[in-house]
Amino acid sequence: MTEHSLWRFSRAFHRAINERQLADIAALLDEDVEWAIYGPIDLFSFFGARRGKPAVLEVIRQIAENFRVHRFERESIMLGADTAASMMRYSLTAQDSNKPIAVRIAHFAQFRNGLLTRFRVLVDSFDLVEQTVGYPIHLPRIAVAQ
Amino acid sequence: MTEHSLWRFSRAFHRAINERQLADIAALLDEDVEWAIYGPIDLFSFFGARRGKPAVLEVIRQIAENFRVHRFERESIMLGADTAASMMRYSLTAQDSNKPIAVRIAHFAQFRNGLLTRFRVLVDSFDLVEQTVGYPIHLPRIAVAQ
Repeated sequence: MTEHSLWRFSRAFHRAINERQLADIAALLDEDVEWAIYGPIDLFSFFGARRGKPAVLEVIRQIAENFRVHRFERESIMLGADTAASMMRYSLTAQDSNKPIAVRIAHFAQFRNGLLTRFRVLVDSFDLVEQTVGYPIHLPRIAVAQ
Repeated sequence: MTEHSLWRFSRAFHRAINERQLADIAALLDEDVEWAIYGPIDLFSFFGARRGKPAVLEVIRQIAENFRVHRFERESIMLGADTAASMMRYSLTAQDSNKPIAVRIAHFAQFRNGLLTRFRVLVDSFDLVEQTVGYPIHLPRIAVAQ
């Protein structure tokens, strides 16, 4: 039984972030990869949609400039033949401030011949924003138990 | 081939929200269902973790008090024998203001004998917060292209 593409991708991705070593991950991206991390682009310029290997490598480089992965936990996972989805909880460190940041993400990945062709990431963005700016954002209470 | 539990659950869930008809969805929840919608609890009291059918029905009732589903699109989906995950884009209407709200969510669902036993939902929460409060939240730009 061969290893699922997700595990190879995951190792290469974390190596890219923590060791700023992009060669492994570059070898696992389809030339025409479609990529999107949904979240506030105003806060992090590497959020948003990208197309093609060079644009995606640049996003990964920018993530590596900003964060270090301390640890992560996969809370839910589904694996198909060439697909994978998981919900993960990351413990990160912000590179500039050394501030710890904990954030939950969900990703959907599609592979072809072991290469990533499509990647969609959703972030618990409000939680990330509050931890990143470093102060609570005041919210009116919209929905209360009725 | 029998229908996947997800489709029955999805129909019953949307009927619960839009018609405030909880009977169908109640019949599809395991007595001991584990449920969590990750997002700012300060904004919506129905976010957070719940355990058991009565607590989950109360959450669904509260969602129905606050939103109407206008339409939704499944952007990514994975189906296992008793599991399902999708990334969805919802067009909602806020019940009090009639304001349209578009939000992306990811869910991971687990079923047993057709009943929902575990449900985890991640929301693009910053986007939801801005649309709900009705004004842009000013953010410092943290990460810029370097």
